[in-house]
Amino acid sequence: MELAGALQLGELASAFAALPIFPLFDTAYFIVSILYLTYEPGAVEMSRKSPFASWLCAMLHCFGSYILADLLLGESPIDYFSNNSSVILATAVWYLIFFCPMNIFYKCVSFLPMKLIFVAMKEVVRVRKIAAGVHHAHHRYHHGWFIMMATGWVKGSGVALMSNVEQLLRGVWKPETNEILHMSFPTKASLYGTILFTLQQTHWLPISEANLIFFFTMFMMVCKVFMTVTHSHASPFAPVENFICPVFFGSVSSGHTNHHHDHHGASHEVSHPPPPPAKSKEELNEGTRKRKAKKAE
Amino acid sequence: MELAGALQLGELASAFAALPIFPLFDTAYFIVSILYLTYEPGAVEMSRKSPFASWLCAMLHCFGSYILADLLLGESPIDYFSNNSSVILATAVWYLIFFCPMNIFYKCVSFLPMKLIFVAMKEVVRVRKIAAGVHHAHHRYHHGWFIMMATGWVKGSGVALMSNVEQLLRGVWKPETNEILHMSFPTKASLYGTILFTLQQTHWLPISEANLIFFFTMFMMVCKVFMTVTHSHASPFAPVENFICPVFFGSVSSGHTNHHHDHHGASHEVSHPPPPPAKSKEELNEGTRKRKAKKAE
Amino acid sequence: MELAGALQLGELASAFAALPIFPLFDTAYFIVSILYLTYEPGAVEMSRKSPFASWLCAMLHCFGSYILADLLLGESPIDYFSNNSSVILATAVWYLIFFCPMNIFYKCVSFLPMKLIFVAMKEVVRVRKIAAGVHHAHHRYHHGWFIMMATGWVKGSGVALMSNVEQLLRGVWKPETNEILHMSFPTKASLYGTILFTLQQTHWLPISEANLIFFFTMFMMVCKVFMTVTHSHASPFAPVENFICPVFFGSVSSGHTNHHHDHHGASHEVSHPPPPPAKSKEELNEGTRKRKAKKAE
Repeated sequence: MELAGALQLGELASAFAALPIFPLFDTAYFIVSILYLTYEPGAVEMSRKSPFASWLCAMLHCFGSYILADLLLGESPIDYFSNNSSVILATAVWYLIFFCPMNIFYKCVSFLPMKLIFVAMKEVVRVRKIAAGVHHAHHRYHHGWFIMMATGWVKGSGVALMSNVEQLLRGVWKPETNEILHMSFPTKASLYGTILFTLQQTHWLPISEANLIFFFTMFMMVCKVFMTVTHSHASPFAPVENFICPVFFGSVSSGHTNHHHDHHGASHEVSHPPPPPAKSKEELNEGTRKRKAKKAE
Repeated sequence: MELAGALQLGELASAFAALPIFPLFDTAYFIVSILYLTYEPGAVEMSRKSPFASWLCAMLHCFGSYILADLLLGESPIDYFSNNSSVILATAVWYLIFFCPMNIFYKCVSFLPMKLIFVAMKEVVRVRKIAAGVHHAHHRYHHGWFIMMATGWVKGSGVALMSNVEQLLRGVWKPETNEILHMSFPTKASLYGTILFTLQQTHWLPISEANLIFFFTMFMMVCKVFMTVTHSHASPFAPVENFICPVFFGSVSSGHTNHHHDHHGASHEVSHPPPPPAKSKEELNEGTRKRKAKKAE
Repeated sequence: MELAGALQLGELASAFAALPIFPLFDTAYFIVSILYLTYEPGAVEMSRKSPFASWLCAMLHCFGSYILADLLLGESPIDYFSNNSSVILATAVWYLIFFCPMNIFYKCVSFLPMKLIFVAMKEVVRVRKIAAGVHHAHHRYHHGWFIMMATGWVKGSGVALMSNVEQLLRGVWKPETNEILHMSFPTKASLYGTILFTLQQTHWLPISEANLIFFFTMFMMVCKVFMTVTHSHASPFAPVENFICPVFFGSVSSGHTNHHHDHHGASHEVSHPPPPPAKSKEELNEGTRKRKAKKAE
């Protein structure tokens, strides 16, 4: 029985890993990505004022992960745009979401049950991308652990990691925060996931790639669907982090800080503008996490 | 007669396409580009305070199109700087325009009749660059329509597309707008032109490259010279766009927007800073178009 | 005697040039680099709030020169991160400086005599990097003078040249200034140094690379140690520059500027925000030079 179960699971996992992504899952990915672009303040107005800029933003949301990965590996950042079919598909989704008569398409896809399906399907693509990214980097840098992780991470996080650039394209500029200072759940999950895939790729994790893809996809699906239903943004990693971080990274030791203050007043005089006070930062942090969680979904 | 005329035109076009660009037309290109750098507020003061930064800005204005194209195709962004003669020529122009005794050189080249000649010659270089960009991209991505367009476009627009970066180098930061949100005429013309050249390259447009270069150059010359003489910034594409855009991209449907407001208040709470109100944006838009039209010339 | 002395010096220089950099000198480089990160306002708080962002900043400070050089030459910007040992070493230094119990490590390395040794050792690495950068670029672009200089320069200046990006990562944004507008001593010295190494590489400077490395390292060591001891930021190049610059680049000719004002009022209306007034710029300039000098050390 045990064995049979294991076998069945193995077959299921490998069948799942062999599932073609294009066009079905990709479409879901594009829909959810562009859906969250419409949630950005001013995005809809922009689509009317300058459709081209809006289209470019949509492309960043759909293909940001490829652009970043190609940049990191020193390849052409628009290399993926040679897949005309994908770009045309993403363009069609963008057009339907923003300009469909009576806004029908938007209403359909943002109808919760529909949306949940798409959100779940998007995670399938995300995990595949992470695996592919780690695989690609491993192919070029056989022992480049950090490069594998970096590549897998950007493939999983996508546009979220270049949110400041994406905002700038829309004429918005929020320098006081960024996705790395305040990671959203998908970005963090991609980071942890890419570590697992790197360990698997370098044979430190005794599990088949298919199984890892299967289990990590399930985990991501459950988390994201749950978060979307409950509109919650609480990271499931929080408890673990709150336990581990204090051990390794301590808490703000004002003494340490003051020490610097005394010793290097000069460097502080010129701090201009001063970093926002902790409190406001916290609030902002909260708000940002909300928005970012959406964007990065 | 007809035939003879066609033949003559064909010969003229191919002769025109065979015209060497360096050094004459390049010089004109550098002169006009750096001339418009001097129009940037604070550019002249900067040339006195930190000549090196001013020189770097001038290089961006002269070679921005190569830098961007190389970035897009994943090559060394400073690859073109291996053409020492071009760089030295551009440096000489920069020096003469900013530091020539009694400002003679600047007065000569900005004397309208002279300037018009240079402006016309600059368009010759621009159109050649677009053709070369599309050609280069087509050579690497045989069916990469979007890559061909992107490459041709940045080759034609040049520094305008990286205006925010160029401003940042001068210590100026205007995040509320950019060349893609509010396209200047040259940027838009380059975009339409690169579409034509891409169609020609992929044999969808039944016209020889030489002829297309010839006719598009004539069009650009006439437009730019006219706009420079009349100090106007009205885009000749406006009528067509005003007719087509509403059909495909509608107008701001407040219902659509409100829908988002209700549905995703959260994402709005954190909009910080808020996007400037439409009215002020319009004004700015106007002003920007003015400045950008100049820069991108 | 003369000859013997020359021989001995030559042997000393070549022995010095053959000195292995890793791990000793690299460690010193990482220590000083990260030490100056801790001087950045808010850096210590950040290390507590988001250790990952802090680690990323530390990596930029340690490997910024490689990242920039790879970007310029169109290679993978994270290529150097395939040297796991270097990255792990840098990570260890980062951890010890920020999170060592009772802050012991920080106190040790920032104890002046110790610090001076590290500062001196860092210059050894800097000069080697410049030489290697010029060498690498010369290998790819045999006559690319400007590319050699650019590569050597970024290899020598490192993170200072991307300070705006590094600040943005920490949620700080100071667009009104940058390292190119107001060069710190190390950046300027790297620029002059890279010119010398380029001349040497192209056989215009009749001196062996080993000797040039030796003498330039000595010069940098003396300057940096002196500046660190005296907390001074006066550039030793100032006298020469103050003599040469006026000759070649004159001083602000208000006439010139006004001319633009009259002629191109339009371009000024839209200058928004206006460039800060000269006076405040000067102060800022001073302050910045202080901070930058530290960062770039």
